[in-house]
Amino acid sequence: MMNQPGQNLAKMRDTAPLVQNITNYVAMNVMANIILAAGASPAMVHAREEAAEFTALAQTLTINIGTPSPAWAEAMVEAARTAHRLGKPWVFDPVAVGATGYRRDLGARLLACKPTVIRGNASEILALAGMQTAGKGADAADSVDAAKDAARDLARQTGAVVAVTGPVDVVTDGARMAEIANGHPMMPRITALGCSLTGIVAAFLVDHDPFEATVAALAYYALAGEMAGEAKGPASFQTAFIDALYGMSPEALNDGARISLR
Amino acid sequence: MMNQPGQNLAKMRDTAPLVQNITNYVAMNVMANIILAAGASPAMVHAREEAAEFTALAQTLTINIGTPSPAWAEAMVEAARTAHRLGKPWVFDPVAVGATGYRRDLGARLLACKPTVIRGNASEILALAGMQTAGKGADAADSVDAAKDAARDLARQTGAVVAVTGPVDVVTDGARMAEIANGHPMMPRITALGCSLTGIVAAFLVDHDPFEATVAALAYYALAGEMAGEAKGPASFQTAFIDALYGMSPEALNDGARISLR
Amino acid sequence: MMNQPGQNLAKMRDTAPLVQNITNYVAMNVMANIILAAGASPAMVHAREEAAEFTALAQTLTINIGTPSPAWAEAMVEAARTAHRLGKPWVFDPVAVGATGYRRDLGARLLACKPTVIRGNASEILALAGMQTAGKGADAADSVDAAKDAARDLARQTGAVVAVTGPVDVVTDGARMAEIANGHPMMPRITALGCSLTGIVAAFLVDHDPFEATVAALAYYALAGEMAGEAKGPASFQTAFIDALYGMSPEALNDGARISLR
Repeated sequence: MMNQPGQNLAKMRDTAPLVQNITNYVAMNVMANIILAAGASPAMVHAREEAAEFTALAQTLTINIGTPSPAWAEAMVEAARTAHRLGKPWVFDPVAVGATGYRRDLGARLLACKPTVIRGNASEILALAGMQTAGKGADAADSVDAAKDAARDLARQTGAVVAVTGPVDVVTDGARMAEIANGHPMMPRITALGCSLTGIVAAFLVDHDPFEATVAALAYYALAGEMAGEAKGPASFQTAFIDALYGMSPEALNDGARISLR
Repeated sequence: MMNQPGQNLAKMRDTAPLVQNITNYVAMNVMANIILAAGASPAMVHAREEAAEFTALAQTLTINIGTPSPAWAEAMVEAARTAHRLGKPWVFDPVAVGATGYRRDLGARLLACKPTVIRGNASEILALAGMQTAGKGADAADSVDAAKDAARDLARQTGAVVAVTGPVDVVTDGARMAEIANGHPMMPRITALGCSLTGIVAAFLVDHDPFEATVAALAYYALAGEMAGEAKGPASFQTAFIDALYGMSPEALNDGARISLR
Repeated sequence: MMNQPGQNLAKMRDTAPLVQNITNYVAMNVMANIILAAGASPAMVHAREEAAEFTALAQTLTINIGTPSPAWAEAMVEAARTAHRLGKPWVFDPVAVGATGYRRDLGARLLACKPTVIRGNASEILALAGMQTAGKGADAADSVDAAKDAARDLARQTGAVVAVTGPVDVVTDGARMAEIANGHPMMPRITALGCSLTGIVAAFLVDHDPFEATVAALAYYALAGEMAGEAKGPASFQTAFIDALYGMSPEALNDGARISLR
């Protein structure tokens, strides 16, 4: 039996964890704002000269390969290893991992660093699991349904909780599988909302069971999309969405979350 | 006789092209959001290790020198050459090209890679065309009028369509010249709107005549500024502007565009 | 006796200075938009190949170590030295300077380049002044009160005006000390507002006494937070805040500023 997701939200806000993010240039600002709106504390620290040193100060870590480069790739691996060694959770966001050879190689190196959670869209999870995929760029050309088996396999291969986000979100640890039916069709029309969710997952992970924490984080995020409601377009939707992350109470999350365990 | 610009918009949305952008750090997030709002699919891929490989996946490319560095400069040249070799359109955005020797050199290298379209403000087009200019930073200290002859010369020298954006936009292929009278005085008070327009031009270029596609893209963008209407300030204007890009119908574009051919 | 801060605002808008910023990736877009909203002209120019050359074109400079790297560190030092040599003001923003050895070393190098103003939160000013501090990431774990003595010492050691921002802002040149009581509790929930303020300080510095200009810039910024008023959350607050920076008249600033000299 799962905790109510509102309990995870309340504890995350009490802890206000320091979340280190090695993320892409597109996501940096909105991801920091989303982590702040949720109630945690973001730090974007990615230089090889300091990234792993900073990991010792942070409580949780995210790594996103959206705009990779050689120096950052080394910082990613060093920070991930440090988190693993110190027993701190870290979340891997394999942006467009199937698109180029450079990303496939980097993705494989990071998988070897034992992420606590892997969060991607269907194409990315299929690519990571070694299946054929039609991924183009950061889009989710594959459906979440097609990625369910791949997600379970990837969880079993790696020991990570795997989250596939899309119209319906799926979370699995290889044994359990949960689906979250919340969300809003405008969310994919805004850049870096998936990347930013990775930071919310990381914040929820501190001192929580990874599977339950990931389910709670995804439900919180998707419900905020519903609460943002009907906007005239993606820019006003983004404003309402971030405000909803800020304003949502644990009770509202418990009431609104549509989670089903399989 | 030109097509109606709404037809270009409708076809662009049907195609939803994958637009690769090597752009500056300031523009990345808003440019991706603007491309998504318009109905295309952005990918910010600039690392030398993968940029040209990705160009083969994308349908169209933009290169913006707003925050150049040595590694990115090589990626820019390699991606531009790849686009040219594969017959894919690419748009050059020569941000502040006259400001430093480094930008002038990089600008010259990229001109040699045969851009399909060059889009800049008056100071940038004058600088590229080799004329004297008072450009400071990314501002448009020179008037669009002063840049008309330079734009025509640059188009003839390079074979590119040249677009000069400002209070009135001018587009020329060296023979034809169009003016677009739409727009809003708040637009220059928001950073990276010009950079983001470059991505919209690239999206419109796919399978269209470059001159007509550029005119249609500029009319669409400037009319969205009018539709955003009176805001209390630049931040609420930006929100309304992006929502207008999302919501504008092809019919509204045909009705509202004020294009004159010279 | 101080000038009215509205006079500084009016003169800054008349001058519309070109502000060069070597800032972090998180802040770039919002900082440029905030500088534009205030009425100045931003340029984000940080590549070593051109940064110091550009400093000769700009009227004022900011350096922020939020996302440092080896190439940028050299550009920072070269640009700061150029500004000092040419008699142009420059503002140092020592983001999380106490968090890692890399930042401490870079912070010391930049202090040696004689900043006109240093602007940070309490933890950062305490770290720079060599005191014990509990800073984590970019947060202000220490109170502004605790940092007052450190600020005065730092001003005397360096010859810079030192500004400590927080619930109450403090500005000192080592002899004078001013407190600004304006502000809004939502401001720390939005990323990069402190970084962006550094750009506003730099714009106000052009042709003004550094102490008075810094006080005026901080009052303008904090009063805009009050004018933004009650929002549903941090995203709508940010929009209202930037609009308020754009719309505030010099008279409104003189009426609303709560500055006390000690």
